[in-house]
Amino acid sequence: MPDTIFARILRGEIPCHKVYEDDHVLAFLDINPLSRGHTLVIPKEMAATLEQMSDESAAALGRVLPRIARAILAATGTGDFNVLMNNGARAHQAIPHVHFHIIPKAQDGTGLGLGWRPQPIDEGEARKLAADLAARIGEAR
Amino acid sequence: MPDTIFARILRGEIPCHKVYEDDHVLAFLDINPLSRGHTLVIPKEMAATLEQMSDESAAALGRVLPRIARAILAATGTGDFNVLMNNGARAHQAIPHVHFHIIPKAQDGTGLGLGWRPQPIDEGEARKLAADLAARIGEAR
Repeated sequence: MPDTIFARILRGEIPCHKVYEDDHVLAFLDINPLSRGHTLVIPKEMAATLEQMSDESAAALGRVLPRIARAILAATGTGDFNVLMNNGARAHQAIPHVHFHIIPKAQDGTGLGLGWRPQPIDEGEARKLAADLAARIGEAR
Repeated sequence: MPDTIFARILRGEIPCHKVYEDDHVLAFLDINPLSRGHTLVIPKEMAATLEQMSDESAAALGRVLPRIARAILAATGTGDFNVLMNNGARAHQAIPHVHFHIIPKAQDGTGLGLGWRPQPIDEGEARKLAADLAARIGEAR
């Protein structure tokens, strides 16, 4: 795993606008925000992408999301927001250390833009795929 | 909180293409997928949006994300993916029951589209906002 700006922030070598920290998680403002209050929540565990995370680290990351979201909503006066994690360069990940973006959808329209092009599902194929996924998840437990 | 299609799925009144279930979480294929393997991960807790969730439910939801992601990547042969939670209608939430989308970015280009318009941060304002958020999160603990 390459050294990243987030690893340097975790080591205290680079400052950040910290909003939360515990044994497993650090949260700070994105310095290139999509909207006011745009916050990054990262694990202290060194994992480039979600599928590399341990259960424990992922649980700790999940646990603090509601609390941080409540603070962002209260501080910005926004009611709507997106939570996004990009994994891999083709999925728009810029820094290879796991991070959730919490992005308020501000009244002025700033925030995350989404492109949504759903496709009809093939029921037969979906049945097989779901069974395949269930088997793989079961084996991984 | 309104009755939703997800609540009906949780009660077993509507079928789904289930891929995972435990005491706190259910995961199943999105029937209007953005790409093959597009999966929804929902808490059994009745919460419309993230900020309404309990710590325990959010931790349980976070814990299973890596495991489900690994299965999706293995089954679809994709390496890149987005994890997205929309909260509120203006942030593109269609069903008012918390749900994470796990969306592979397929080789054919299908998947989530993102609109990213970052703005320069005002360092002074950011310092105040981070302190405000930290205080609010601290009070909520």
